[in-house]
Amino acid sequence: MCNTSFAERGDKKAVEDGDLLMPKFDRDGLIAAVVTDVTTGDILMVGYMNAEALKRTVETGEAWYWSRSRQSFWKKGETSGQVQTVHEILTDCDQDALVLKVSVAGNGATCHVGYRSCFYRKIVKPESGALRLERVEAEKVYDPGDVYGKS
Amino acid sequence: MCNTSFAERGDKKAVEDGDLLMPKFDRDGLIAAVVTDVTTGDILMVGYMNAEALKRTVETGEAWYWSRSRQSFWKKGETSGQVQTVHEILTDCDQDALVLKVSVAGNGATCHVGYRSCFYRKIVKPESGALRLERVEAEKVYDPGDVYGKS
Repeated sequence: MCNTSFAERGDKKAVEDGDLLMPKFDRDGLIAAVVTDVTTGDILMVGYMNAEALKRTVETGEAWYWSRSRQSFWKKGETSGQVQTVHEILTDCDQDALVLKVSVAGNGATCHVGYRSCFYRKIVKPESGALRLERVEAEKVYDPGDVYGKS
Repeated sequence: MCNTSFAERGDKKAVEDGDLLMPKFDRDGLIAAVVTDVTTGDILMVGYMNAEALKRTVETGEAWYWSRSRQSFWKKGETSGQVQTVHEILTDCDQDALVLKVSVAGNGATCHVGYRSCFYRKIVKPESGALRLERVEAEKVYDPGDVYGKS
């Protein structure tokens, strides 16, 4: 599909101080992508891309990922409408992580649970016992229905 | 060292809709941690924690990681002084990623290359040829010296 290409992985100086993209994919061929709202800077989700998903993202300007659970390409928003238009992609010093600054189409939510961001809970440490979670997003953007089925 | 504990991993509803921390560590026993500046919201780095590093972070209020390259615990700032005081930790829907909101001590930089953030370059697509990188941070916070040696 794409004619976008990356340079071969270089030495430490080339990777950290150079001006060529030399992404480091892990042993599963994936790189972590942190997705932020281009307007607010809020972190919306963390996804994973393989080389082809990264190329498709650069080519199309819309975010593609590799779904580790489904082992398939995943264009974010293809079914939900929550398509991510990518305004900027950053990489870090050792080029093994990406930051995508995006705007979200559709209902504006990113999380399938209904929240704007997947990071809707914070860790709290109780007086005793296991660590707990508290909601930090007051309300959902939409009601995804009973996603867990009857129990 | 720590008496902090997590609940056992539950079903999908417990993980996504519940109020217990049930972190999902990958096959190397690691979870991704996105580190942001508590004041500006800027993303500073992406690190990885194992269960013990996460517990130490919660217990001490300062960020601990697992160094994949050195295969050892890594208290951020232990040698550089760039210690991260952790103000809040968020987790995502499937609890396989964390966001840490931190303030940075020492010279205020996070990246060993000298920049405030490890994400100091953005991807640019040239007319032809491999993808390139451009600096987005105007200047370094400090000069780390010749970290690459003579070449």
